[in-house]
Amino acid sequence: MRMSRLLVRTLREAPADAEVASHQLLVRAGYIRRLASGVYTFLPLGLRVLHRVEQVIREELDAVGCQELLMPALHPIELWEQSGRAAMFGSDALPAMTVEARGGTFVLGPTHEEVVTVTVSAEVESYRQMPLTVYQFQVKFRDEARPRFGLLRTRELIMADAYSFDVDKEAMQSSYQTVFDAYLRIFERLGLHVTPVEAESGAIGGDVNHEFMVPSAVGEDHFVSCASCGYAANVEAATRGVARVAAGGGGPTSAGPVVEHHTPGRPGITDVVAYFADQGATAADFLKSLAVFDADGRPTLVLVPGDREARLPSGWRLFEDADFDSNPSLVKGYIGPSGQQEHGIRVVADTGISRPGPWITGANRPDHHMTGAVLDRDFNVDAWGSFAEVVSGDACPHCGGAVELVRSVEAAHTFQLGHKYSEVMPGSTFVAADGGEATFSMGCYGMGVSRLLAVVAEEHHDERGLAWPPEVAPYQVHLAALGAGRSPEVGAAADQLYGQLIAAGVEVLYDDRDVSPGVKFADADLLGTPVRLVIGAKGLARGVVEWRSRATGEERELPMDGVVATLAGG
Amino acid sequence: MRMSRLLVRTLREAPADAEVASHQLLVRAGYIRRLASGVYTFLPLGLRVLHRVEQVIREELDAVGCQELLMPALHPIELWEQSGRAAMFGSDALPAMTVEARGGTFVLGPTHEEVVTVTVSAEVESYRQMPLTVYQFQVKFRDEARPRFGLLRTRELIMADAYSFDVDKEAMQSSYQTVFDAYLRIFERLGLHVTPVEAESGAIGGDVNHEFMVPSAVGEDHFVSCASCGYAANVEAATRGVARVAAGGGGPTSAGPVVEHHTPGRPGITDVVAYFADQGATAADFLKSLAVFDADGRPTLVLVPGDREARLPSGWRLFEDADFDSNPSLVKGYIGPSGQQEHGIRVVADTGISRPGPWITGANRPDHHMTGAVLDRDFNVDAWGSFAEVVSGDACPHCGGAVELVRSVEAAHTFQLGHKYSEVMPGSTFVAADGGEATFSMGCYGMGVSRLLAVVAEEHHDERGLAWPPEVAPYQVHLAALGAGRSPEVGAAADQLYGQLIAAGVEVLYDDRDVSPGVKFADADLLGTPVRLVIGAKGLARGVVEWRSRATGEERELPMDGVVATLAGG
Repeated sequence: MRMSRLLVRTLREAPADAEVASHQLLVRAGYIRRLASGVYTFLPLGLRVLHRVEQVIREELDAVGCQELLMPALHPIELWEQSGRAAMFGSDALPAMTVEARGGTFVLGPTHEEVVTVTVSAEVESYRQMPLTVYQFQVKFRDEARPRFGLLRTRELIMADAYSFDVDKEAMQSSYQTVFDAYLRIFERLGLHVTPVEAESGAIGGDVNHEFMVPSAVGEDHFVSCASCGYAANVEAATRGVARVAAGGGGPTSAGPVVEHHTPGRPGITDVVAYFADQGATAADFLKSLAVFDADGRPTLVLVPGDREARLPSGWRLFEDADFDSNPSLVKGYIGPSGQQEHGIRVVADTGISRPGPWITGANRPDHHMTGAVLDRDFNVDAWGSFAEVVSGDACPHCGGAVELVRSVEAAHTFQLGHKYSEVMPGSTFVAADGGEATFSMGCYGMGVSRLLAVVAEEHHDERGLAWPPEVAPYQVHLAALGAGRSPEVGAAADQLYGQLIAAGVEVLYDDRDVSPGVKFADADLLGTPVRLVIGAKGLARGVVEWRSRATGEERELPMDGVVATLAGG
Repeated sequence: MRMSRLLVRTLREAPADAEVASHQLLVRAGYIRRLASGVYTFLPLGLRVLHRVEQVIREELDAVGCQELLMPALHPIELWEQSGRAAMFGSDALPAMTVEARGGTFVLGPTHEEVVTVTVSAEVESYRQMPLTVYQFQVKFRDEARPRFGLLRTRELIMADAYSFDVDKEAMQSSYQTVFDAYLRIFERLGLHVTPVEAESGAIGGDVNHEFMVPSAVGEDHFVSCASCGYAANVEAATRGVARVAAGGGGPTSAGPVVEHHTPGRPGITDVVAYFADQGATAADFLKSLAVFDADGRPTLVLVPGDREARLPSGWRLFEDADFDSNPSLVKGYIGPSGQQEHGIRVVADTGISRPGPWITGANRPDHHMTGAVLDRDFNVDAWGSFAEVVSGDACPHCGGAVELVRSVEAAHTFQLGHKYSEVMPGSTFVAADGGEATFSMGCYGMGVSRLLAVVAEEHHDERGLAWPPEVAPYQVHLAALGAGRSPEVGAAADQLYGQLIAAGVEVLYDDRDVSPGVKFADADLLGTPVRLVIGAKGLARGVVEWRSRATGEERELPMDGVVATLAGG
């Protein structure tokens, strides 16, 4: 492609709303353009990268027997009512858009579990037709509250989503592992260093799931990583090892009696810690008590160490003011665990408070706290769990080593769904090997293709511009002729080399524009093609072309008559 | 691909709503499935055909220098307000869907003129960057009132739409011709016999446009075709030659006086023709008078011969009852042209009434008609035009020969837009060669890729099933092993041939299922792969494979050891 013809315009300045490098560079290099908040056009260079990423995904999924199909973007809302997910619309977890049409209400598909379940169920009648994994490249719509970071969080995105159908859980786990491994190969080809981590299933559901995380300074997610044993989990799903839990805080340790203290106007943990600071207490000596409803709607008290942020399981929610009125044993701002069971309140606790104490806690009286509370003497815990956020230095739940928190972006998410959709969508059964009727065991797998452009660009760039891995680069070679305006020989030699490279099957972007060498070099670095070739008058006189690697900066001279063979071979 | 693994289920019966062959066969052969009215899933075989059609289009457009990009499906409604087309939403011409999102109201793109105009305008600053034609493959949304005929008219479709940008009208016409010619090459490769016809521009606009029509017994459109000179136009845009117009009807010819007749309760043309039948009058002796508002809102009377259906220009509309109250000179059911100009009514007439008469017409009195009305004596015409539908046998407007009406489906539509969008969308200017500011001259070009599957299937099928042209077939070879269950040698030979064909780059669908020869033959015919190969015990004993062409039915035997070379070569 000749740059003089290509629809590309490079910009010196990034747009004002571009906070991260991938967004800045993809816009500056003319790969994408914003049409609206979270809505982007792919200009020719950007679309070439998108197609290359798609092709890598297609090849790896086809190689393990997956079959490509294409489901609609318009979903009858009845399907989402059958699955129960229509009730989640508008939430951050499932910001679906709907449209009123002559044929009824349609959901603009944010994901395709419902549609694929009814589609495949209608075609597969027998256990003999499985294992079966289908996938598609499809535009998805998500009404994000705050689209940002360019292609990282958009309202409209291209997704590669796959769905597996199996006869039972064991077969499903095998299909899951197959796609999981294919995903790892895809990311390797895309030049991404990915860590699969245990994660929360969110709006998709299912028992087991993994996020594929790419460490990144601009990431909005964190995962917990243990260098000792390899344990990795999203911070929302991570648990702590018990070892360090028993260490506790550094405050009063004698198991004296419980003492009430008048602490007026100090409902917050920070204020009350300051109040007891002269007794040597730190935040770690306090019980943080949260009044919540669990996923089944039961009033529950969650205890976490005072120096930790609480983390509630999905489906749990904090009390609102009116809820305190209905549960008078829980005094807002002064809640404590003592005797709550007598009032029908279930008490659950983070394993971080499993040492006896003594603890400082709310006294269940307005403006009062108590010190000296001892576990199993002054309060009881009905169930233990992981209710506190993990921080760097916490013990690994597997090996006890110190874990680290890694900032990262999500590149993909895979789910073992089991029967979540097949047991609620109509007709999701098949004839099993024993002749009986059985329900499909499903998995689902998704990666945002358009998002991956940004993820790859985040990992492969420098201060001068993009530096694409060869598998996804829009062109393999960036050919620049210097001073062709003054030297017809240079122009002729460049034209000839361009033609020879194309004939040899090399994908070349040819900068034939009448601009300065400085502009050509800057644009070549910005666009990020893996190899740059420069033809100038001096080199031409010596019969050489300058070769340069965008990724490593390595430079060398190639004899003019060997260029094509060298590049076509590599 | 092994059919035992492929997600395909062939059906003996077509769905009840499938009225046309392409719909019936694409469903029966397992290419597509209906999710909702006008909303379809492409199963793996259907998606392969879709991709092949896309690739043919891509190759031909790339070959003439077009550049592929990808614009969003979500359009800010403000762009459609700027073009003025938001006012057309909900009409049959532009049945757009809109969605209320957090970021405002978005239009689900039914077409992309607005978006491409602002997108390209932002990138192209100078006349030097043109000619420029961009295209995309994109999902489009149209809230059709009556989706039908499977993929022929859907709510969600895949479109290949192209847009050209040029410095002036002449350059635009050159770009238009370039894409026009590329379209003809595309249709040739797709095996479609296409006739480009002059057409109405509808909701897109512009001066010149062409529809690419494929004659088809199931078509909803008709075009007018002249075998003598090659004139072709959509029936909505076609005009008649004047020659036959002067021929007139066969009724009374003496230019006697006007006579009023009491014709109570006969407001319809059929009734009143019957009334005057005893005087030898036929429908051709009557003036059909239609009270309408023209595109500028002026009250207008349209005269057409009584034996013709009227055809109003786009933007004109018939009077409603209230409009007759405001224009008392026009008496509903008994309208005539006499003296209407005195009441401010403009009279326009089809060239078919240009003979003097005498004519029978309404008398502008309730329950009265008049005979003996003569043009230019008893009534006057302000302007002449083509207001009657063309029928087979009418004179060609170019050569006077007899035209024929051809039933057909539309495969594509191209438009010379000129400045229609660039003069209303903000910033649609560039620096011209003379240094001044100029407005882009645009063209636009669209074909429904998913629709083309149906169009090709309509042209390439027989009573047994589909018969794909090689360029679009999902596989090139359908390999069937007969009796492999009884004969391990047959299974082994078929497995081996399958592997060899794949290794040679031949795309093979291998029917390795344990079903009867009858089922295998029927499915091979239904699926429509161009070449069928059959391996059976008898042939194998003689070292031959049966080769059969799906399109022609030609059969021959190929020596087993020459099959791969024969098929890989072709």
